[in-house]
Amino acid sequence: MIFFKIMLFVKDMPDLIREEDTTIKVPDSQDLTRKAEVFYNPEMKFNRDLSCLVLAEDFKSRIKKRDSYTVCDSMAASGIRAIRYFKELEKIERKFKKKIFAIWLNDIKKDALDAAKKNLKLNRIAGKKIVLSNENAKTLFSGNRFDFTDIDPFGSSVYYLDSFFGNSMHNGLLAATYTDTAPLCGTYPNTCLIRYFAKPARIDNMHEIGLRILIAKTNIIAAMHEKTYSPLVSFSRRHYFRLFGRAKKSSKGTIKEHLNNIGYMLYCKKCMERKFVGLELFSQKDKCSCGENYDYAGPLWTGNLNDSDFCDRLIPCANDEKMKEFIEMLAEESRNGGICYSIHELAKKTKKDVLKTGKLISVLQKQGFNASCCHFGGHFVKTDKMLNGKEYGKIAH
Amino acid sequence: MIFFKIMLFVKDMPDLIREEDTTIKVPDSQDLTRKAEVFYNPEMKFNRDLSCLVLAEDFKSRIKKRDSYTVCDSMAASGIRAIRYFKELEKIERKFKKKIFAIWLNDIKKDALDAAKKNLKLNRIAGKKIVLSNENAKTLFSGNRFDFTDIDPFGSSVYYLDSFFGNSMHNGLLAATYTDTAPLCGTYPNTCLIRYFAKPARIDNMHEIGLRILIAKTNIIAAMHEKTYSPLVSFSRRHYFRLFGRAKKSSKGTIKEHLNNIGYMLYCKKCMERKFVGLELFSQKDKCSCGENYDYAGPLWTGNLNDSDFCDRLIPCANDEKMKEFIEMLAEESRNGGICYSIHELAKKTKKDVLKTGKLISVLQKQGFNASCCHFGGHFVKTDKMLNGKEYGKIAH
Repeated sequence: MIFFKIMLFVKDMPDLIREEDTTIKVPDSQDLTRKAEVFYNPEMKFNRDLSCLVLAEDFKSRIKKRDSYTVCDSMAASGIRAIRYFKELEKIERKFKKKIFAIWLNDIKKDALDAAKKNLKLNRIAGKKIVLSNENAKTLFSGNRFDFTDIDPFGSSVYYLDSFFGNSMHNGLLAATYTDTAPLCGTYPNTCLIRYFAKPARIDNMHEIGLRILIAKTNIIAAMHEKTYSPLVSFSRRHYFRLFGRAKKSSKGTIKEHLNNIGYMLYCKKCMERKFVGLELFSQKDKCSCGENYDYAGPLWTGNLNDSDFCDRLIPCANDEKMKEFIEMLAEESRNGGICYSIHELAKKTKKDVLKTGKLISVLQKQGFNASCCHFGGHFVKTDKMLNGKEYGKIAH
Repeated sequence: MIFFKIMLFVKDMPDLIREEDTTIKVPDSQDLTRKAEVFYNPEMKFNRDLSCLVLAEDFKSRIKKRDSYTVCDSMAASGIRAIRYFKELEKIERKFKKKIFAIWLNDIKKDALDAAKKNLKLNRIAGKKIVLSNENAKTLFSGNRFDFTDIDPFGSSVYYLDSFFGNSMHNGLLAATYTDTAPLCGTYPNTCLIRYFAKPARIDNMHEIGLRILIAKTNIIAAMHEKTYSPLVSFSRRHYFRLFGRAKKSSKGTIKEHLNNIGYMLYCKKCMERKFVGLELFSQKDKCSCGENYDYAGPLWTGNLNDSDFCDRLIPCANDEKMKEFIEMLAEESRNGGICYSIHELAKKTKKDVLKTGKLISVLQKQGFNASCCHFGGHFVKTDKMLNGKEYGKIAH
């Protein structure tokens, strides 16, 4: 047993990977690069760690009142995530002295499913708590619903949302990965329009805009099926977006109100002024306070990206400091509302000093606004003050 | 054998219904009102007649070059439509001396499928040309694709579009019915927002707006699956919308261009001025030429609702004059572009005379604009002139 990064250089070592208390074997037929891609991506350990925290929190909040709890890993690949989920939930069951969960492990690829089976055996997991299937995730969702559903494709989860919401469980939790950051961040705006019917923006807070486009699109599809999707934890990291949220069967009135959180972000390319507006774009003035025309991005989610209370409950359960800090940041940025700005970019536009993030935050707070760091980067500030070049210029020298 | 309307009053007659060369039996277990709803709706004969024309035209255009042609009636109910399709295609096969078609007859209800089986027998249809299945249409579409797919639910076809386009055949023809006219025509705008993420308008051309919202939504879902949907025949009649169009696998460039046909309709409640604008609403001036604020509807399809050339090819095949006239009207209104206006409403707003439709059309044409009747009603004019109260007032007295 050996860590992956070392294994990459020690080809004669057995192909075993250990992550937390889970061991998996990567099939021999795959070369190492391909293995990393398809079966075990060490970059995704962080994602799996956080997913385990979210799942555990949801399970703990339900175990007392429930007789069953179902989890679906719809694209299981090597099975590592499902196995980690299994061990996580087993720990909680031992604590609560109650056995209720079952994990559905699915992959459309027969090869992957075979590998997952071997890995289940390697981890001594067997019995009624595991259901295996070899289906298209869309077909799986049409016929089955789960308390916790994980969609983790290469590319976009958007293709599975209609099937998911068409049959989702009330209060079911959805975990979805999107690796198509280039369209969502505005490198390929046509692809973003085609796939999400939304306009991205290739500007400093492009990752924030990408996340907001995804939450809006998820809600548009949910609404069609008379459901709402409420974000719990949403983040952008390296080359992927990951979104956790709750699907709820809702009344039309509630859905309508929920959809009021979808609108557009108007932004000025010249002075960086930006603001959220509702769907009724055409009644907005099209000029920035600097006199330039606004451009826009959206439709996008103008509400919170994270449920701060939910995030707060995850923090004490996190094993390492980096994870704690990350979740604290998510909680913090969603407590305050507002939009993100790159301080580097503000300084560049205005030819002023680059203020330290903490300094800018404290000035904004003294002015009576909410302001915080955000997870998009250390040089970002998130504030409900409508910042722009002029305002930044007044603060920096 | 007896027609349905008479049958309603002659309860002791056998439950046989004849439509064109097709006979069907309505199961005894159903009371007559329910029968009409679920199994045989005589109001829909017109719809079936037109559907047969569209199917026949598509089949004729392909039979020479193809070795197979598949039709799917995904919600077959009594089977009457599928049986009529069968007889229609058989006639064409006899003419071309080639046997290539097969019809997939599906219904999620076991009862309906049993009734359909009896009706197939009654019409002496058996053999390899018929495939029967008892599935959810979404599941059916996920695993199968057809040259001609018919979706005819009670309510909206929108729930099936993702599954359809996710696996649709290149150049496959889609026939879809929508009976949710109240949301689409603005009686229930919240439901329209929730279901279609679009804003309808409860004004005189509400049916036109409803159709345009449907074509836009169909294209938004098609685009996600890297396809376009090009309308062939689209109409509103009594309490339903019916849309025929072609799904094409397309390049991103083509899809982007195709989506340029989606935008909004700005309209003035005071003077009836209305115009199409692109998606970039916020750069539009928000005032009507009369000084009032515009309201808007959409996103909606601003392109043609019908393919005039395709419609022209249907006309000589139609059996009765009413059908010929109806299709001629569809062809005509889509040759000219523009938006529909109720002349009654223009007269009411301006307190001027109600001009005869022909008279108004000829005046508009003399002014150099395109103008025609349209199928939404005899008192409607469709024109690419931006009509409003002031302009109408100049023409009427």
